[in-house]
Amino acid sequence: MKKVKIALLGLGNVGRGVWMILNSNKEEIMKRSGYEVEVSKILVRDLKKERGVEVPSELLTTDFNDIINDDSIKIVVEVMGGIEPAREYMLESMNKRKHIVTANKMLLATGGDELFQKADSQGVMFNYEASVAGGIPIINGINESLTANKIEKLYGIVNGTTNYILTKMEFENLSFNEALKQAQEMGYAETDPTSDIEGFDAQYKLAILSSLAFGTKIKVENVYREGISKIESIDIQYAREFKKVIKLLAIVKDNAGKLELRVHPTMIPENHPLANVYDSFNAVFIKGNAVGDLMFYGRGAGDLPTGSAVISDIVSILRSNIDIDNINTVVKNNLWDKELYNIEEVISKYYIRLTVEDRPGVLGEITSVFGSMNVGLLSVIQRGRDIENENKVTLVLVTHYTKEGNILNSIDSVCKLNSVYKINNIIRMEEFN
Amino acid sequence: MKKVKIALLGLGNVGRGVWMILNSNKEEIMKRSGYEVEVSKILVRDLKKERGVEVPSELLTTDFNDIINDDSIKIVVEVMGGIEPAREYMLESMNKRKHIVTANKMLLATGGDELFQKADSQGVMFNYEASVAGGIPIINGINESLTANKIEKLYGIVNGTTNYILTKMEFENLSFNEALKQAQEMGYAETDPTSDIEGFDAQYKLAILSSLAFGTKIKVENVYREGISKIESIDIQYAREFKKVIKLLAIVKDNAGKLELRVHPTMIPENHPLANVYDSFNAVFIKGNAVGDLMFYGRGAGDLPTGSAVISDIVSILRSNIDIDNINTVVKNNLWDKELYNIEEVISKYYIRLTVEDRPGVLGEITSVFGSMNVGLLSVIQRGRDIENENKVTLVLVTHYTKEGNILNSIDSVCKLNSVYKINNIIRMEEFN
Repeated sequence: MKKVKIALLGLGNVGRGVWMILNSNKEEIMKRSGYEVEVSKILVRDLKKERGVEVPSELLTTDFNDIINDDSIKIVVEVMGGIEPAREYMLESMNKRKHIVTANKMLLATGGDELFQKADSQGVMFNYEASVAGGIPIINGINESLTANKIEKLYGIVNGTTNYILTKMEFENLSFNEALKQAQEMGYAETDPTSDIEGFDAQYKLAILSSLAFGTKIKVENVYREGISKIESIDIQYAREFKKVIKLLAIVKDNAGKLELRVHPTMIPENHPLANVYDSFNAVFIKGNAVGDLMFYGRGAGDLPTGSAVISDIVSILRSNIDIDNINTVVKNNLWDKELYNIEEVISKYYIRLTVEDRPGVLGEITSVFGSMNVGLLSVIQRGRDIENENKVTLVLVTHYTKEGNILNSIDSVCKLNSVYKINNIIRMEEFN
Repeated sequence: MKKVKIALLGLGNVGRGVWMILNSNKEEIMKRSGYEVEVSKILVRDLKKERGVEVPSELLTTDFNDIINDDSIKIVVEVMGGIEPAREYMLESMNKRKHIVTANKMLLATGGDELFQKADSQGVMFNYEASVAGGIPIINGINESLTANKIEKLYGIVNGTTNYILTKMEFENLSFNEALKQAQEMGYAETDPTSDIEGFDAQYKLAILSSLAFGTKIKVENVYREGISKIESIDIQYAREFKKVIKLLAIVKDNAGKLELRVHPTMIPENHPLANVYDSFNAVFIKGNAVGDLMFYGRGAGDLPTGSAVISDIVSILRSNIDIDNINTVVKNNLWDKELYNIEEVISKYYIRLTVEDRPGVLGEITSVFGSMNVGLLSVIQRGRDIENENKVTLVLVTHYTKEGNILNSIDSVCKLNSVYKINNIIRMEEFN
């Protein structure tokens, strides 16, 4: 049996998963890759830290030089996260013609180009299946299995924390804050949950997926982003009336070569496959012009699922040809230039919830404003007066397909009406057609 | 741009899809593979037949020698189906060191071993993504993305025709025969629908998937098979009472190295992701010991989805290295020997629907028989007398987890009771735990 030496950069959650699987599934990996995989060094910051896993202490090092200067190490597995020093370590490793496997979504989304170019110029492999949607093989799916397709649309539930929170809100009628607290207790949400709940994590992932799916270079800042912290129980109840559920979706659509890219809470039909993705599960739904509808569903995080993705990347390198001169690297990014839409140009249906004065004529005033901005209304719901607010009622509007710019202008004008106390929420609706 | 010549064997549904995609998505395929793909010959039986697609007549041939003797043809794409001459043509092509892409589930399931061995001995690539579940990249998923896993369980809805029929029965309360007729009108079912409705098609596909997932050689005849033709509307109604739906599932489980393999109608919980796979869609649900739960969902048939899978296989060959001497073929079958269970040894819960005499004491007689065979009953439903059958009532039993052998013995004894007129149906239940 041939043997290959690899190094891990980092021994946190994902690193521990990789180590555990390499040990527990040694035989499977050996038979399927043709190699015995030996972890010969693990870079850590603190040699003494308790890791929750038994690793021989002689493998641990705090000095990256022990790895970069060891020519017997052929693959460097970056599972430390963050921008620096991860970026520098990967570039240096590739300079020494070591192959790279990384799980680093932030670095890929913000500085991936430099890394891809280095891999290309050095003729090494650079794999990143674990960077998006954990154990779900979505990178390989797009990269290897959809090569015959023009991808038209991609919709992802790519953040498990927010999906867990929305599931709790839907099934247990919890408030956003109560659900967030539960997510934190379960370990699904960080102490500072901003990156998840405000959609930054999903934004990174959509930039990576879109760059790959459309063979272009998408900058994170070109992905419109909105989180779920404004979603209230009442929005979920109204969604149910419309036979919809609310999900934080990462969306990209290609309209004749021009892309729209956005991450935001979205009302989707309750019978769509994405609507049935609950708890911390992730899923990516793709429409290709040949394959039609396709969905990948699974665990978007966790030590073992993410470790599974990392190791599939290692095996893929081993199967390709460890003889690096024979690797047929195909540059998959930057095949096409794409124009991008501004969010104002995006066309959608909108759910708008307002608090307004309860007196005759108010509904007419408000709907007239939308009408004058060419926003058609599909349905209007106004129930009896709120008990606690004697002079206020909730008004819910659903629009026809409209340019977002028209919605924003309408809202601007509606806000100026004396009868309108508050715009409580605006949520886009998606019908997948 | 490098150029590669390929030949198609067959120009039916799938062949047409391949041709159409190669033309409409030429640029995508070229950029992603690094090659311009040229179809230089297409083997057909009838040069005059109307194909529903425009193909230059000089490409068509009825003589396989035009392909096998043309050394410029590097890849042979077998989309003719059936055993012979597909088998012979593929073997001959590999003898001439041409790579193979095939969509032929029947041949793979019954004689795949010979083909895999030939590919290995000739050092050519042999790809078969399109043989199972059409456009869903399940072969690549298992083969490339789950390499770090011990696969524990796999459940597939791999036959679109039966899923369409069951969906129609569920949502429109059609009888089996009415739903089958609709499926035939929609073109989802053949004039002779036996292969689909009796589970033969799913049996082939499970043999292929299991061989790959467990790195072993599964013979079709070792897959237990039962179709959906005995399912009645009343069974679907009872399923609904138990919050379950009925799906034709292809199931394989690895119990400490021993496999159970079976295709049969199955009652599954209505909130399981597979329960929400409707119409002619397919899905494969996998439990790996690292990745956890994973599901692939999409179009299981059709010219373009299946063509998408065929072309991804072509691109995969082009990316590997067209220089056949450098292909690192890893034999993926026959890595492990596995024992197999007989169906009598399988453990499941069972739904049993009987027609029995309506008189005091009958329920006691029947449940005693099950008790004496160690079959525990989880629930018993007996409603008022059937209107049309004055002396008959329907009895529905749901058992605890039980060996199938015990069920069969119980049924044998129950049949001998004078009070039992008929065993209407026995349906296994799956709880995915």
